[in-house]
Order: sequence, then C-alpha cells, then structure tokens
Amino acid sequence: MFMHNKRLQYTVRVSEPNPRLACMLLEQFGGADGELAAAMRYFTQALGEEDPGRKDMLLDIATEELSHLEVIGSIVAMLNKGLKAQLSEAQQDEAELFAMVGQFGTSAKESLLFGGGPALVDSAGVPWTAAYIDTRSEPTADLRSNIAAEARAKIVYERLINITDDPGIKEALGFLMTREVAHQKSFEKALYSIENNFPPGKLPGIEQFANVYVNTSQGEGDETGPWNSGEQWERIDDLEQTMPIDDGDGTATVVLGKEDKAALTQLMLRGESATDKDPTTGADLGAGPGAGKTKQIEEID
Amino acid sequence: MFMHNKRLQYTVRVSEPNPRLACMLLEQFGGADGELAAAMRYFTQALGEEDPGRKDMLLDIATEELSHLEVIGSIVAMLNKGLKAQLSEAQQDEAELFAMVGQFGTSAKESLLFGGGPALVDSAGVPWTAAYIDTRSEPTADLRSNIAAEARAKIVYERLINITDDPGIKEALGFLMTREVAHQKSFEKALYSIENNFPPGKLPGIEQFANVYVNTSQGEGDETGPWNSGEQWERIDDLEQTMPIDDGDGTATVVLGKEDKAALTQLMLRGESATDKDPTTGADLGAGPGAGKTKQIEEID
Amino acid sequence: MFMHNKRLQYTVRVSEPNPRLACMLLEQFGGADGELAAAMRYFTQALGEEDPGRKDMLLDIATEELSHLEVIGSIVAMLNKGLKAQLSEAQQDEAELFAMVGQFGTSAKESLLFGGGPALVDSAGVPWTAAYIDTRSEPTADLRSNIAAEARAKIVYERLINITDDPGIKEALGFLMTREVAHQKSFEKALYSIENNFPPGKLPGIEQFANVYVNTSQGEGDETGPWNSGEQWERIDDLEQTMPIDDGDGTATVVLGKEDKAALTQLMLRGESATDKDPTTGADLGAGPGAGKTKQIEEID
Amino acid sequence: MFMHNKRLQYTVRVSEPNPRLACMLLEQFGGADGELAAAMRYFTQALGEEDPGRKDMLLDIATEELSHLEVIGSIVAMLNKGLKAQLSEAQQDEAELFAMVGQFGTSAKESLLFGGGPALVDSAGVPWTAAYIDTRSEPTADLRSNIAAEARAKIVYERLINITDDPGIKEALGFLMTREVAHQKSFEKALYSIENNFPPGKLPGIEQFANVYVNTSQGEGDETGPWNSGEQWERIDDLEQTMPIDDGDGTATVVLGKEDKAALTQLMLRGESATDKDPTTGADLGAGPGAGKTKQIEEID
Amino acid sequence: MFMHNKRLQYTVRVSEPNPRLACMLLEQFGGADGELAAAMRYFTQALGEEDPGRKDMLLDIATEELSHLEVIGSIVAMLNKGLKAQLSEAQQDEAELFAMVGQFGTSAKESLLFGGGPALVDSAGVPWTAAYIDTRSEPTADLRSNIAAEARAKIVYERLINITDDPGIKEALGFLMTREVAHQKSFEKALYSIENNFPPGKLPGIEQFANVYVNTSQGEGDETGPWNSGEQWERIDDLEQTMPIDDGDGTATVVLGKEDKAALTQLMLRGESATDKDPTTGADLGAGPGAGKTKQIEEID
Amino acid sequence: MFMHNKRLQYTVRVSEPNPRLACMLLEQFGGADGELAAAMRYFTQALGEEDPGRKDMLLDIATEELSHLEVIGSIVAMLNKGLKAQLSEAQQDEAELFAMVGQFGTSAKESLLFGGGPALVDSAGVPWTAAYIDTRSEPTADLRSNIAAEARAKIVYERLINITDDPGIKEALGFLMTREVAHQKSFEKALYSIENNFPPGKLPGIEQFANVYVNTSQGEGDETGPWNSGEQWERIDDLEQTMPIDDGDGTATVVLGKEDKAALTQLMLRGESATDKDPTTGADLGAGPGAGKTKQIEEID
Repeated sequence: MFMHNKRLQYTVRVSEPNPRLACMLLEQFGGADGELAAAMRYFTQALGEEDPGRKDMLLDIATEELSHLEVIGSIVAMLNKGLKAQLSEAQQDEAELFAMVGQFGTSAKESLLFGGGPALVDSAGVPWTAAYIDTRSEPTADLRSNIAAEARAKIVYERLINITDDPGIKEALGFLMTREVAHQKSFEKALYSIENNFPPGKLPGIEQFANVYVNTSQGEGDETGPWNSGEQWERIDDLEQTMPIDDGDGTATVVLGKEDKAALTQLMLRGESATDKDPTTGADLGAGPGAGKTKQIEEID
Repeated sequence: MFMHNKRLQYTVRVSEPNPRLACMLLEQFGGADGELAAAMRYFTQALGEEDPGRKDMLLDIATEELSHLEVIGSIVAMLNKGLKAQLSEAQQDEAELFAMVGQFGTSAKESLLFGGGPALVDSAGVPWTAAYIDTRSEPTADLRSNIAAEARAKIVYERLINITDDPGIKEALGFLMTREVAHQKSFEKALYSIENNFPPGKLPGIEQFANVYVNTSQGEGDETGPWNSGEQWERIDDLEQTMPIDDGDGTATVVLGKEDKAALTQLMLRGESATDKDPTTGADLGAGPGAGKTKQIEEID
Repeated sequence: MFMHNKRLQYTVRVSEPNPRLACMLLEQFGGADGELAAAMRYFTQALGEEDPGRKDMLLDIATEELSHLEVIGSIVAMLNKGLKAQLSEAQQDEAELFAMVGQFGTSAKESLLFGGGPALVDSAGVPWTAAYIDTRSEPTADLRSNIAAEARAKIVYERLINITDDPGIKEALGFLMTREVAHQKSFEKALYSIENNFPPGKLPGIEQFANVYVNTSQGEGDETGPWNSGEQWERIDDLEQTMPIDDGDGTATVVLGKEDKAALTQLMLRGESATDKDPTTGADLGAGPGAGKTKQIEEID
Repeated sequence: MFMHNKRLQYTVRVSEPNPRLACMLLEQFGGADGELAAAMRYFTQALGEEDPGRKDMLLDIATEELSHLEVIGSIVAMLNKGLKAQLSEAQQDEAELFAMVGQFGTSAKESLLFGGGPALVDSAGVPWTAAYIDTRSEPTADLRSNIAAEARAKIVYERLINITDDPGIKEALGFLMTREVAHQKSFEKALYSIENNFPPGKLPGIEQFANVYVNTSQGEGDETGPWNSGEQWERIDDLEQTMPIDDGDGTATVVLGKEDKAALTQLMLRGESATDKDPTTGADLGAGPGAGKTKQIEEID
Repeated sequence: MFMHNKRLQYTVRVSEPNPRLACMLLEQFGGADGELAAAMRYFTQALGEEDPGRKDMLLDIATEELSHLEVIGSIVAMLNKGLKAQLSEAQQDEAELFAMVGQFGTSAKESLLFGGGPALVDSAGVPWTAAYIDTRSEPTADLRSNIAAEARAKIVYERLINITDDPGIKEALGFLMTREVAHQKSFEKALYSIENNFPPGKLPGIEQFANVYVNTSQGEGDETGPWNSGEQWERIDDLEQTMPIDDGDGTATVVLGKEDKAALTQLMLRGESATDKDPTTGADLGAGPGAGKTKQIEEID
Repeated sequence: MFMHNKRLQYTVRVSEPNPRLACMLLEQFGGADGELAAAMRYFTQALGEEDPGRKDMLLDIATEELSHLEVIGSIVAMLNKGLKAQLSEAQQDEAELFAMVGQFGTSAKESLLFGGGPALVDSAGVPWTAAYIDTRSEPTADLRSNIAAEARAKIVYERLINITDDPGIKEALGFLMTREVAHQKSFEKALYSIENNFPPGKLPGIEQFANVYVNTSQGEGDETGPWNSGEQWERIDDLEQTMPIDDGDGTATVVLGKEDKAALTQLMLRGESATDKDPTTGADLGAGPGAGKTKQIEEID
C-alpha cells in the first residue's frame, strides 16, 4: 500500500516563471525516459517478481521514482504558474497572451489544453505510452533493461542540466540525475547476484551460430574491434556463405493441402501480371502529350 | 547503400499452415522486441555515430536484423498462405471461412485487414511504433540499451520456441534466438571498449546522493542484498530524513512578479472552495430518497 | 513524497490460476478507466492545484488509486502464476504450451511478450496512453471529469464482478468498485463547494445561443424531453434558421494580401478541373471491355 | 442518414492569414476536447442507446458537433490560405518560405505534411485518437462523461478566445463556446431524468467501504472539507487500519496445482539471487579505478 | 452544415445476435479502412479545396460516408444487443457470462469496456487514429490517395462478405462495398479532369533519375516486366554505378565552424573505442566459468 | 538477405549545421510519407506476394527506399552535428545552449531526448507508427496504395525543396523526389499489367448501386462534373429516395431470443428517462441564483 507526505523528497526553489523551460522538463515527467516510465517499469516487475530480495528492491525504487515524478512535476508547475494564471484570468489583452502562448515550441498545447498544469506528455506534446515500458518477467532481461533505462534517464537529466541556469532547478536536477546513477548500481548488483545470467533466460544458444559475426556492411569503413574479432569470434566476410547460413536453399516453403493449393492457384491466376506487354497506365494518361517521360527540371537550380 | 539477394539468411521450411502460430510470431515481426525494432535501433545509432568502429558494427548488425525481419516475415507468410488464398478466393462457404477467421485471438484483423500477409503489428494487432526505439545518441547509454534489447528479444524467441513443435520453424527460431546472443556479446564488447563508461555520459553524480539507498517500501518483506547493503551503500530507513533529503523545507516555490501574483490571487478567489458547508451535490440529487448513503449490497454475496 | 508498505490495501485470495480472467482484469490495470488512469488524473491535478483543500483531497485519492493499482495487479499476477512458470520453464511439451497460450483472446501477447506478468495494457493488449487523462487545470471542469471517470470505472468493475465467480476476486473487486463510488462522492462535494461552478470557467456564454436547442436530427423518432423543451429552452426545428445562425451568409472568407492572392490564383489554375469533358480514367483502363460499367453481381446471393 | 448544406452554421470572417493561430485552433479540430471527439462521443452513444428520448438528443447534438467541426476547420483553412498557396506555388524564394514555415511551434508539420489544410491533429501535431472517446454504453456513466466533456471543451474555447483578437474569429469561437454550455445543460437534464442515477449502473456499493475516506496523504497541508468530513463520512487517519482494510493479512495468494508448483520452484531456483555476496558488476568494470564510487561533481556549481 | 434523418441509408435486418461477427465488422467502423477514415479523409480535403467542383464532390462523398458509418455501426449494435443486455443486467450467472465474454478474440474489451456498444476501434480493439488519414492538400496526390483508399475499403468489405452468412447483413455489406466502387470511379474522373496530373504537384522530376530502374534485389528470382524494362526505362544492374549515383564519393559531410569542431573532437575522444584490447564484459562476468562461449544447445531438438 | 555498402546512393554535401531544417527533414525520415513507411509498405507486400514479377519489383523498390532512408538520415545527422556536440560536451554556457535548443518548433525533443541524432519521428516529434502502412495483400488495392504513397511522398519532397536553399541538400532532395516519380511509374505499369484490375478484388459490385451518385451536400455551391454526371452516372438529388435506398423502412432491427428480450426490457426500464418532468440538475445547483439561465456575456465584445 502506498502512503504520501506532502513534503517533497527534494526542495524545489524556482527563481522565476519560464514556460519554455517547463516544456523541456516535461521530457522527464511524461517522456520516454521520464519518471513515470521508471516508476511503472519497476512497479510492474515487482508485482510479478518471485525472488523476495529483488521484489523488495523493485518496490523501493519504484516508490522513489514516484517521488521523483512529484519533484519534476512540481518544478513544471512552478515554472508555469504565472502563465496559468494569466491565461485563466485573462488580465492581459489578447495580443499579449497570444505572444506568451505562442512564443516557443509546443507551448500552445501546454497552455491551451493543459492550462499550464504538468501533463503526462513529452517536450513535443506526445502523450506518455506504456509502450515505453519493457518489463518482460524474466529477471536476467528485466535487470538489463533497468540498467539501460537508468543510463538513458541519466543522460537526459545531464542534457537538461546543461541548458538550465536557474540554480534551484539545476540543483534539483543534479539530485535526480544522481539517483539514476545510484539506481543503476543497485540493478547491476542485482543482475550479477544471479549466477549464470548470460545468456539471459534458460535456453542456451546454438553453438554454431553464437560466436559468428556476419560482416553484412562492407566497403570503405570496415573496421575490426573486440566485437567482431578475437578469440570469441568467427567472422564471416564472404556473405555468400550466409545465403543461407544453414544447408538449405534459402527459400521459404510450406506444405499445403489440396484445397489450399486449389485456392492459391486461382488467386495466382486472377492476379497474374502480363509481363510481356507495356500497358498504357494512369500515369501515361495523366502525363499529357509527353507521356512516359518526365520533363527536364529547371526550377531546381 | 542497401542491396538484397532473394535467398534468405536461413531456409524456412514450414510443415503446414497454422494462422494461430503466425499470429504469435508477429511478436517478433512487428512487436516491441521484434526485428524491425532491432534493425531501426541500430540503424539510427549508426547514422549518428562518430566512432568508426562502432559505426561499422552498428551497420553490420542493423543490416543483419533486416535479414531476420525477412526470415520471420517469411515464416508468417508461409503459415498464412492457405488462409490467405481461401479468404481471397472464397472457395469455401461463409460459415467455414467465418470459423477459420474467428477461431483464435487477433486473427480477425490479420485476416480481414491484412489478408493474411505479414503486417507490422504485434500478436495483439497493435501497430509497431518507433516509441519502442530508445536511441539517445550517447554510446554509453545506447550500448546498454542494445544489450538489454538483445536480452529481451532472446527471451521472446525462447518463449516462441517453447510453444512451437513444427521442426523447421523451431530450427529457424533457434537460429534467430542465438543471433541475439551473439549480438549481445558484440554490444558488451563495444561498451567495455569505452574507458570510464560508468556513470554513462560526461557529468559525474553528486557524491552525497550517489551511494544512498532509500528504503521507501517497508514492512514485512524488507530484505537486504548487495543492491542496498555493503561497502558501497549508505541506506536510509528513517524516511523522515528524506523529506526532504536536502536542507530545505520540502515545499515547491517560485518567485512571481506583480502581475502574475495579481492574476493568481484572482484565480484562487474564483475557484475557492467553501470547506465549511456541506453542499447538496449532483450525487445527492441522483441517489434518491436515501441521498448520501449507498444502499446495502446484497447481490455480491 | 511517497512511501510504501508491502501489505496490500485489500487482501488478495485467488482460488486458482485463470489467465483468461487475468487478461480481462487488465482492463482495470492498464485500461482506459483503470487505476493508473485514475491515479495519474488526480496526481497531475494535485500538482497544479492552488486551493489547499482540493490539493489535499486530490493527493489522498491519487495515492489510494496507486494502492488499488497494486491490488488489481496482484490479482493478475496470481491468476497468471502457473502459466508464467510453465512457459518460462517449459516443463510441458510444446503442444500443451501452445494450447495454453493460444486458447483465448489476447493471451498470446500477455504470455509471449510480458511472460505472464501484469502489464500496463488493456484487455486487448493496447498499451496505456496518457491520452486517457483529461486534466485541464480548471477545477470546475476537472472535478466534473473526475466524477465521470469514477462513474465509468464503477461500471467496468460492475461488469467484471458480473463475470467472475472466484469468491476472493469478487470480494476484492467489490471493494475496488465501492471505492469508486466513495471517490465520486468526494469529487461531487468538492465541485459543489465552488460557488458558481456553472458554466465552468470564467467567461459566461452568449445569451442568445446558450438556451437554444437545435433539432438537427429529424424524421420519425423525434422526441421531447427536459433537454430540449420547457422553460429553459428555445428549440429550433426549422434548420434554415441556423444556416447560419448569425446574420451572415454562412460562408468562410479571409482577406488576403496581393502576394497571397497571386499565389492562390496560380494554385487554382494549376489544379483546375475540366468539368466539361468525360476523361478516360485509370478505372476505365482497368475495367476491361465493359469499362465504366461494373458487372452484375451474382456471387453475393 | 446525414445530409449537408454548404452554408455553415456560423459565418466565418477572418481578417488576415495567421498560421500560428491556425495551429492553435487545431486543438478544437483534432484535439482531445475538439469537435470530432464530441461528435463521435455522442454518435457512438446514440447508436447503442435504447431510450428513444436520449437517442434523439444524442443524434441532435452529435450532428451539431459535426457542423462545429466544419466551422472550426473552415477558420483554420482561412488562416492558412496564404501559406498554403505560397508553399505550393513557391513564388517566394526559399529563405522566405523557410522562415514562414519554421517560425513557430508545430507549423512545420502543418505546412510540410498537410500543406496548410486543416488536419485532424492537435496543436502539437499529435493525430486524433479514439482513445479520447469514453462511451461506455451505460447512460448514468456516459451522461456524466458528456457533461465533463462539454465542460472541458468550454474551457479550451475560453482560452482560445482569451488569446484571439481577430473579431470575426472571436465571435465564432464565442458561439462555439456557448453551444458547449447549452449542450452541457441538455446532458444534465437527461442525467437527472433518470431516477436513481447514483451510484451509476446497477450494483450498489458495499456499505462498509462506501462512506470511508482514507487520508493517505498526510503531513503539513492536511485539510478538511465536505469531501472527507461530516455526516456522510468515516475518515481513516491511522493507515495501519487499511493495511489491509479487510480482515486478511494483506498478502496476495493463489492456490497452485502440483505441476504449476513444480515449475514455479524451478523458476525461483534458476533466478535466485545470491544476497550474501557482493558481486563485481558491469558498472564496477566500467567505472575504472574508482569503481563503486562516483566522482565528486564540481561542474554542477 | 450537417443535418440528419433517423432513417438509415440502407435498412439493417439482422437475423440473430453474434458478437463475434460484430467484433469483425468493427474493422469497417473504427478500422484503418473503415467509414470514419473515409469520411474524415474527404471532409478534411473538402475544407481546404479551392476548386468548386471537387469541393462539392468531396462534401457529397464525405457526407455519404458518415451515413455508411451509421449503417455499419447499427449492424454492430444489433449483433451485440443481447450480450449488452445480459452483461448489464447480469441475469445469467457469472460462469455463463464469463463464457459469453471470453469466447472469442477481442470480445473482452468490446464487452467490458464498451459494454457492447459500437466503438471506434478495429477488430483487434485498437483505437482509430487520424494517422490513417493521408490528406496532403494537393489534389493530384489526394485524389490518388482516395482512389487507393476506396480500393482498400472495397477489399475489406469483400472479405467480410465472404465470411458472413446472415442474409440481411450480407446485403447491407454488398451495398456498402458497391458504393466504394462508385466512389472510386468519381475520384478517378476527378483526377483525370486535371490536365497534367503526372507527376503530381508542380515540380517536374530530374530527367536523369526519372527513368532509371535500380535492380537492388538480385539473385534467383530476378524478373523483367514493364515496370523495369522497355522504352521508358534505363535499368541498372551493376549496383556499383549507384554507390553513389551522382559523381561524388558517396559519403556524408558537413562544414563545421571552429567551436563545433572543438566540441566534436572532445565528444569523439570521450567516447573513443579501444579496438585493440579484448575487455572483460558484463556478459563475460555473467556467463560463469565458460565465459565468452555459450553452451551447446540440446533442449531444442 | 540484405547487404550494405557504406557508400550512400547519393552523396550528401551539407554547407552548414541547421537544426531547424534537420527537424523539418525528419518528415521524410520518420514521417507518415517518409522513407521508412515506403520501405516497409513494399517489403511487407513483397513477403506475401505470389506473382514472381511483382515480388521482384517490390523487393527492388523496398531495398532502394532503405537506401533513401539512409540518405535522408545522413543529411539530418550532418545538420545536427554541431548541436549534438555542443549539447553533449556543454562547452558553451547554459543560456547559450538553452537558446540553441529552444529556438524553434520541436527541437527540444530532438535535442534533449535524441541528442541530435536522427530519430524515427516526424517534424512534430510524433513517433513513426505502422498505422501508416496500408498493405492489404491484394495487388489491385496495394498497387493503387503504392501509387498514391509515391504521389504523396513526391509532394512532401517538393515542399522541402521549396524551403531549402543549401545547394547540396536541395540536390539530394531533388534526386529523392525524382525517384518517387520513377517508382510511381513502375507501380502504374504493374497495376495495368493485371487484366481487369477494376473493380479491385474479385467480387463485382451490385449494379443498381455502382453507378449512382448521391448528392448529399446541397445548397449553393452544387456543381456538376464527370464524377457525378454523364453516361456513367445516375444522380440522386432527392435524398428521400435514399432514406433508405433499398425497399425497407430504414430502421435497424435484430431478432432476439427470449432471454435477451427479458434482459433488454429490464435494461430499458432501469435507465428509462422521465421526459415529462423538468428535474433540478447539477448545473442548476452550480449556476447559483440565476439557475438555468446563463449570464449575459459582455467580456467578449
């Protein structure tokens, strides 16, 4: 069960309203790597987790992320407080309000639809979606996803810190960014507390394919590194070898029953393409006298 | 520049049509951890990558994932070939076709909208979205995301292998699953080839918050482990300490100008809540004679 | 700041696994009227609320909804526990697992992608989206939205209760349904504690249009009721009166500058339609000898 | 059956092109509370409604909302007419056109993809989604949703009126806003014409939970009001009482069969966490010599 | 302005309830090629159209599509009427209702969330999105999109007719399908009434690239046809010629200023990859004693 | 199987960084008519195609579109290279970076979330969705969709060319635009190589409805043209004829069984509307002393 105290986990001191910055900070409120995504990623994992230690950890961190959602949302609310009041009470004239609302990026939606309140959208106004959450109910995958998610969130906070000069906000963002680092460390510890966590899951790979590196992109710029060379790798440069990599002919086949075959034959006949004629087409009709040839372009230069 | 050869990377041999299985395999065609997500994750990273070695690796693996998309899509096409022909040519009567189309899960959309062709939706018919892609243009985050993505994809293939008994499909899925293992290894090598890859990005964390573990979920079930205990951690059990964790008062404030203050005051007055009265409400009106009290539930027991 | 205790707000006692029911219950986990939508609707309102009483209420109810999210998610986890283990450990043969996974609705995605864990999708596998949240930062609108949201959630719980015969789940759903009733009551009280809450917001309506009812759908089935008749209404049956309802000519016009006019003229000339000829079309080309006429349908009967 | 007359319900007189304002007005064309959402909300309810009076009302209002969609879309078309022609005919040089297209918010998509035509997206360019529609086929819920929807739409129009100084547009927006007020009144009348409309639906609540208010958010800022105090309420301040609120132990349990138990045991063993060791992790590897400790941040200050 | 008459454009006679079929028919109500998509495609084009003839045609057809939306939605409502009443009134016991709701595809969401009313989702329960609409405000493109959309809608109706044996529904679907044919014909006529409609838009193509066919997919299965051979085509088989097709070197370059160069250099140094070492990775840590090698798979066979 | 060469299909020469233009060009990278949509439209068709000639053509063009995706993505990467480095390395002060990131449209998300790398979103930051793909597995529909898609893509390139004055980018866009023209020609040839491609699919239309034009939008502005007049058309102006167009009564009916009827009766009784009273409503309560009448608006004028 969740409880709440009205004090924040980190004090929010904003120097002055700044709706443009508010809009950017939404990236960590309702954005792909924001705090709701974090909280819900760990919370859904916790509900399905069987290991008591990991379950506890996931609940701890999920709950803390909710508190971070509250911190970042509170900053947004402070930054928008003036705009919200002006727009709602219409104490300035229309032209002034129009300028306030329209002066930057996606601020129109923030102002007109959400009235300046913190909304679960990203900095472009795109609503948060649970498609951002990658919980798969297998700890050796989920913990890697959590590690990656914390790394991404850390980077987004870093970028926000780089563009912010309000000292109170910068401080709060520094706190939030650092907590992502701490959480990544926890998830790393939890992952490596599972013996044999690689490959993830239960099934081992098929040996003949597990150590192969296929050099599918060739030409100038081909490089070597520990990801494709060295003891752990057999590298394939001659791509003919992998067309197919098995001993088949590289085609796709299915065994059909009689009825299916009959229907398929009819489908093929009905849609057969007459490859030996050059039919007049709608484009030919539409291209006018010079049909089939497009005109010389001159306008482009 | 991309080129294509009509042979597949792995030969596809399907024993018989099975649209229900086709529908499930879409998870790896147009699903969250499917091959399009993989290909596009690495391809977008490659385009923005400055390090020549990583760029080459990302292009190699992105290109291979496109070939995997082709393999899995070809299996789906084979599994649906009979249904596609039957539905298109209507050689069976309506009741039989209705039964074929309606006998399982999301097959209706697969059949009616996509006509049995492989579509970029998942097993529930939800269209693929680039929201699945978590490229952030910072290699120490992106490589971790790639590692996690490969781990997830490996697990989904493992589950598909567990439910499939067509030997040709099982073999192809085994190949595809194993390649995820190999790709994970490449991305791991690439990550650890970057010195000081933790914390990700450039800014270090704030020391006082980086090693703290906040025990926000308490009560029976509290556990310890290397993720919250030991040399690297200071653990906070007394949550009062973190309300707030800084030396402030845990509130959110902003300094407003005169005009904003005036507008805000008016906004507050206009929406003020009369907390000392108990108003008659719409619910009171609607609840009939027993207004304000809900009736005893008996139906539930 | 949020805190958590591992005990649930309501004890969850599930009689036996039932993934089909689990799938349905997701409607209240990651569905449009589910508990995440509720929690986030009130939480985002709370962050932007200026009235201290309403802010407190919104935080109380938002926090409780998070606990309800935990209850419903825990039921889902219990219902799926067997399937999750079977699929993950593959102790049954493939055909049996295939049957388990494929036997109903959207269970494929639940099993294959989410591994049986509770996911923030609805019963059709559609990811939760913040587009479900209708916070607008104006209490006289938001409280009405909350009242409506509670009414909808109550109905979805009622339907779930109607289809469930596991007594432990039925009881828990009864609790959750009833809490929606209680919350609706709170929001009603809060709405009517605001004097002059109708019309919502600050601007009054234009009198001449505020009491008009336009009878746009006519013919058999036209009815009267207090929504279109009586003292509060002027009803318009003769629609010519409202084409337009103002004193203009019902067209749309804009005053363009010289350059815009010139460009527009050119655009019109370029795309002008020759209405006096009957051109041969692509359809004519494609229809074969009987061009322009479609054949008699016989197959349909 | 629908019919159409080319005259609008309200005459549209636009003083001059203004693509920035056009972009904002899209909020009521393809936005969450826009006219398409309104029309489709009532239209889908009408199709499923059994009560003849309500069905007629829903068809009347749905049809009128389509006419409002036409009015708002016509304003957008007028505001964009110049930009559309300039961009299409390219009569200005590239730098001028680039400036026109790029000077504000989401205008790029409006111009480049939609060519200046009114598109069913909101002011941030997000496509309209039927996820905005909350029809549930239960009139005591749906009418409340309609009341709330009209309240929200009224507020968005009010905000648009506050930022617009073109008198013709302002007038048309005033008309549209007022119609939302009138529609809200109709829906209110229809709701209260249903006896016993609270609680919504058929099942009553469970008495012991229906009148309880749980004070889950505590600390400074706790308030009382008619929503949590007074005759209708029993308020719980001691949260231990609600962990759980029933007489159980607050845990989640399910009775598993033998096979499920066996599989679950294996799953737990396989993923068991070694909580008594402090494993070296990927983060430790990546942190360099100072592994496990993050560096002092100095850049932030 | 829109008007409505309660009589349908086509009489709907349904023989008996069939929620499974209802679910399938949603494809044409709230699906990608359904009637809402059609109506909104033409309606948005009409609002922006300058040519009076095309504008009139678009309004005519848009309005008719709304009437078709009403017909298909009415069929859905009839097919679900029994389920709706049973679920709402709970006159059957829970197990029976559970079976009704759960017996097919996405029926759970249809029943539980929408209560059996017609909802703007497709047959998989995915909400309709304006992303389906491809209006671009250029008639030579839009008319082609309309032709294609009618062709697709015709096919989906054909598939629905193939699976339906209720004679009244089959008849109504036949009517709706045929109207798509008629509309396609109208759009074809309108397209070819524009002289020089190919290439679409104003700019001609660059002659040297307009008639080239690049044979990028090679190997067994290479075919010729009028789309790549004959008088209108120059076909490139030697792909080296198109790497690049211009006279450059096929790389991507940008001229950077001094500051950008300095920052870029630092970015590259910071993320440089040590390609000459074989670092120990997280996967190596996690793979246990056999690090770097995956185990032989045996379970798969 | 796909292969890749690091040389591009067209050399990319960018004169200087320009993130605003980069943002706009995303329309053709991750937008509705962009290169990913094109590639995936043709690729999914190819996988399901039975005709060898069309299959080859679809694979050729799909593969080329992937190379175009690479070209446009490379331009975006070049345009953003400076911003990416500045933001990542933070070598400028916060205010300068804030200005760079915030100076235009959706640049915030491009910078903060994607770090300046090319992302699969459109110019408004909306993620690419497979809902853009209209593959239906019927060549007479799919080829028309392809023709339309190429026409749309051509137009979007044309608009981008109109706003770009960097000569290297303009040239590359000219190449890409022209290839859409060439592809449209190929698809036209393929469509007209199928005999009897109209009406699309197999079922003919019902003659009595196939040649009817319903003049649903009337009033001033009614026009004639070859789309509604002439030999191929019977035009209906008297709309009473089409209410309904068949010989029924224009209502919707279903035959219900006894149990369904009983439940329906109860549903109707329970929700019956008392049309003969004028109930007090929530709006009446909320409107204060002047309940039922809205106040005279003065603020608007």
